[in-house]
Amino acid sequence: MSIKSISLDIFFFCKEDEKMIEQVKNAKPLIHCITNKVTMNDCANALLAIGGSPIMADDEAEVEDITSICQGLLINIGTLNQATIPSMMKAGKKANALQHPVLLDPVGIGASQLRYQTTQQLLKEVHFDVIRGNISEMKVLMNIQSQSRGVDANASDSITDENLDENIIWLQQLSSKTGAIIAVSGAIDVIVDSQNAYIVRNGCQEMSMITGTGCMLSAIMSAFMVVHRQRLLEACTYVSALMGYCGELAKNKMLVEKLGVGSLRVYLMDYLSLMNDGILKEGMKIEKRC
Amino acid sequence: MSIKSISLDIFFFCKEDEKMIEQVKNAKPLIHCITNKVTMNDCANALLAIGGSPIMADDEAEVEDITSICQGLLINIGTLNQATIPSMMKAGKKANALQHPVLLDPVGIGASQLRYQTTQQLLKEVHFDVIRGNISEMKVLMNIQSQSRGVDANASDSITDENLDENIIWLQQLSSKTGAIIAVSGAIDVIVDSQNAYIVRNGCQEMSMITGTGCMLSAIMSAFMVVHRQRLLEACTYVSALMGYCGELAKNKMLVEKLGVGSLRVYLMDYLSLMNDGILKEGMKIEKRC
Amino acid sequence: MSIKSISLDIFFFCKEDEKMIEQVKNAKPLIHCITNKVTMNDCANALLAIGGSPIMADDEAEVEDITSICQGLLINIGTLNQATIPSMMKAGKKANALQHPVLLDPVGIGASQLRYQTTQQLLKEVHFDVIRGNISEMKVLMNIQSQSRGVDANASDSITDENLDENIIWLQQLSSKTGAIIAVSGAIDVIVDSQNAYIVRNGCQEMSMITGTGCMLSAIMSAFMVVHRQRLLEACTYVSALMGYCGELAKNKMLVEKLGVGSLRVYLMDYLSLMNDGILKEGMKIEKRC
Repeated sequence: MSIKSISLDIFFFCKEDEKMIEQVKNAKPLIHCITNKVTMNDCANALLAIGGSPIMADDEAEVEDITSICQGLLINIGTLNQATIPSMMKAGKKANALQHPVLLDPVGIGASQLRYQTTQQLLKEVHFDVIRGNISEMKVLMNIQSQSRGVDANASDSITDENLDENIIWLQQLSSKTGAIIAVSGAIDVIVDSQNAYIVRNGCQEMSMITGTGCMLSAIMSAFMVVHRQRLLEACTYVSALMGYCGELAKNKMLVEKLGVGSLRVYLMDYLSLMNDGILKEGMKIEKRC
Repeated sequence: MSIKSISLDIFFFCKEDEKMIEQVKNAKPLIHCITNKVTMNDCANALLAIGGSPIMADDEAEVEDITSICQGLLINIGTLNQATIPSMMKAGKKANALQHPVLLDPVGIGASQLRYQTTQQLLKEVHFDVIRGNISEMKVLMNIQSQSRGVDANASDSITDENLDENIIWLQQLSSKTGAIIAVSGAIDVIVDSQNAYIVRNGCQEMSMITGTGCMLSAIMSAFMVVHRQRLLEACTYVSALMGYCGELAKNKMLVEKLGVGSLRVYLMDYLSLMNDGILKEGMKIEKRC
Repeated sequence: MSIKSISLDIFFFCKEDEKMIEQVKNAKPLIHCITNKVTMNDCANALLAIGGSPIMADDEAEVEDITSICQGLLINIGTLNQATIPSMMKAGKKANALQHPVLLDPVGIGASQLRYQTTQQLLKEVHFDVIRGNISEMKVLMNIQSQSRGVDANASDSITDENLDENIIWLQQLSSKTGAIIAVSGAIDVIVDSQNAYIVRNGCQEMSMITGTGCMLSAIMSAFMVVHRQRLLEACTYVSALMGYCGELAKNKMLVEKLGVGSLRVYLMDYLSLMNDGILKEGMKIEKRC
């Protein structure tokens, strides 16, 4: 194998005049979120924090109206409910018809038949531009044996520097199969399309000690997808670095102040709202695999 | 037009011996909240913070029981769901029969036919004492052309000193038409009945960077409506100043500590619980239009 | 009556080599939560904070799958919904079949017929290892006259040193009748089985000024029940002290920093994550009645 990594600074990663965060704040994209009940407040606040605008709506009778006034759609299957499955289908098809970018977050796909079959049906009837989740969820999607444990990734599935190259191979196959960018979050984030792969080394273990960091990442990614449609792979990568770096900063502040995860959650939201392209440039750890 | 504003200090605004916040804390009114899934935790905590007591219940089979043990009812149509529409009707009629004050928050009424038609049906079958929302929602209610954008007010609809008088005219017509006090939140809050109008200049732009400030205001207003039924218009005005002033204090603390919107949200709740009639007296900016 | 209290320090209360919190963190038990919409985010974060792992799922079509991959089950009837009643029954029976510990939190059982009858049905069809709630909820369960007010305990029901012994008697009868440990939270916590009784004097009034402290306690207790099945009564007692002591520490920090209930809520979560057996040993106030 001749795969190697090239670290990228922001000047190489972004086009010279590109300020991805600033452009999102200026565009204030309105995102239709069909998302789980546990973290929907976090997702709404995270979207607002980075300059987007959320609308949560999951009733079958209104999702087409709602999608029509939005610019992007997020479908997250956490706390999946039979009543909202038709809503997901309708909203997804409507978003496809309107050419809005659509993101799927297959939360806990391995945890129940309902989640697995719903995801299969969604993938059949709706085109997703991006699928974002943890490595165990991706393995289930690819029908690779996984010991997925609830909604968290299984430790034995973790992407490490040792198994990175072999993971990229099947993740790119998953991208080819689904036609979607695959964004995997974990200690090492991997974002691939069928041809290219980026690695993000931001984030910290403490982020898994609060609920919703994955869901919030999906929500924020949906906003960036609207504004950076011509550079989807780079935008998804950039957002992964953004979320991870905010997590690092929040963790550091938590430790300095000798506080716990309640404060970590607050500081994470603080840094999401304070983040800009200049600050992220200093902290992002993005590599291109080639 | 001969409309002019008179600034009021608390001694003119309240009766001499009236301590609206203290009276709410003493009465601890129990409010039945049928509200949206995004901000229901915020609404419960906001009600507790100002000394009220929340009970969230939206199943058709129990809403009449729940309303019967409460003193006031809040209906908020965010994340509207077909299953809870009959619940709203039943609870509303029961509250009317029991002569409990009822508040309607028509969140995103312009965003879907489902929300629009449900609101029309609610207005037909239930008497609301107060309708609280943003200016775009009020325009939809009044069938005035609006470019409502999701659940947020449209910038072009904003109430300014220039268009204040003309806005008050149709808002008072909306009050006559519905029989409800109309409480509009924005850079300038306007609270009217068919005859009178109050203006509140508290609050700050940053409050729109966190989800739920409007929903929380509605929840708190519902508690004040129970305790101050003989002075509903003044109570709604006072609560608007209370919420806005807490937002100002929270913003200032956020800026002093160089934090972001996660902390803004925490501090807002802090100040709601720390606020009393004496502190609000120093910060409230209420005017009477006459 | 010859009942008297014996204060216990941790060496008497726990077995010599027992570190209940550390053991939970090591085991990281996965808890299936069927819980209310108001506080589900708080419950998920509280479970993560003490080292457990939550999965929220309430659709009838998936609850058996979900329970099967978990180690414990929590059923909380706040915001009870007709659609999830069959889910509660199915999950409860499945958990019983798999011999997973099951906790019932009968939130607001006195507030509606729906909640009362559902709880009766649950008690008939599912075996609960622990029932946790406030004293008014327990009185309704025992068919004792109570003026339960919404979801909060009625002041006239409060357990005091004066009525402690007589309350313990009927609470032990309730334990015999249901076959469950009864864990009552309030100014004085009482945790009984049919034979034994523990008292916990931790906690503070301010905890009732934020929503979800009871729900979070139930969620955390569910995790401890998985890991300490051989010592359920002691584990439930220990968790009550843990939650109460975290509340005391959070209150103290709130007062020192002159902040309000928004910060109280954040600090409570902070201390849940920072708590360990050594710290709790210093602060716990547990007594055995004998």
